Amino acid sequence: MSPAVESPKKLYLEDLHVGQRFTSGVYRMDEDRIKAFAAEFDPQPFHLDETAAQNTVFRGLSASGWHTAAAVMKLLVTGGLPLANGVIGAGGEIAWPNPTRPGDTLRVESEIIEITPSRSKPNQAMVKVRSVTFNQREEQVYVFTAKVLVFKRPAA
Amino acid sequence: MSPAVESPKKLYLEDLHVGQRFTSGVYRMDEDRIKAFAAEFDPQPFHLDETAAQNTVFRGLSASGWHTAAAVMKLLVTGGLPLANGVIGAGGEIAWPNPTRPGDTLRVESEIIEITPSRSKPNQAMVKVRSVTFNQREEQVYVFTAKVLVFKRPAA
Repeated sequence: MSPAVESPKKLYLEDLHVGQRFTSGVYRMDEDRIKAFAAEFDPQPFHLDETAAQNTVFRGLSASGWHTAAAVMKLLVTGGLPLANGVIGAGGEIAWPNPTRPGDTLRVESEIIEITPSRSKPNQAMVKVRSVTFNQREEQVYVFTAKVLVFKRPAA
Repeated sequence: MSPAVESPKKLYLEDLHVGQRFTSGVYRMDEDRIKAFAAEFDPQPFHLDETAAQNTVFRGLSASGWHTAAAVMKLLVTGGLPLANGVIGAGGEIAWPNPTRPGDTLRVESEIIEITPSRSKPNQAMVKVRSVTFNQREEQVYVFTAKVLVFKRPAA
């Protein structure tokens, strides 16, 4: 029985409250990775080729919205949303208010906006988290309001 | 002036109506790619390691929801939603009702549920498309209700 030195960053349901805020680290969107992700999952001209992208609504190369979403998940999982049982999303609402460009550096600000205890499972709750992703110009590029499954601390 | 042989699959706003349906091709979720995607974007035990995944709510290895979302985008872009100007999503609602497992084969059924002409831009509209993704057991694994930007056919 060594002393339980628990990381303060790993939160259970009892540790959460509405209004609580978290800030992630940063993630740089590299041009090569933007194009490779698009080639695999979202092969459209505005995500693949700078010249072709000029004549589209994006007016220049932009990352697939799903690449941005995935990068944000990386930020949430690696400290941006420090839940002890991990970030388990059931779904939510998403929006991409502005394009993500090559070289952009993303940062996520999250806030707990609702906590709904499960009726059938007393050890868990659905927690609504609004995560706003900013680029280095403080423009919002992605807003994800997620329903996240959170558990109570296990009995000792 | 060669005869205009236009692909019937590339649709403009005039070609769309509420209730219109589309079916995508199929996409196989390979175990290696599931793990690699998770390692890059969603490094959590239930997406990375079969044994560790057994003791989680997923009860076995499952794909990152963002990997499923990205694979579905590939299906939409490559025929599942045959829009002439591409699939340009402003946002929407997402849900993952069931996990995606290694080896699963995904298929997307889409339906146009609302068409809202732009007030300021007469050549475009926001079209709401509900896309339900099924695995080979006909289970719903992902539901995406997207707001998609659609343009009128350009003047000749």
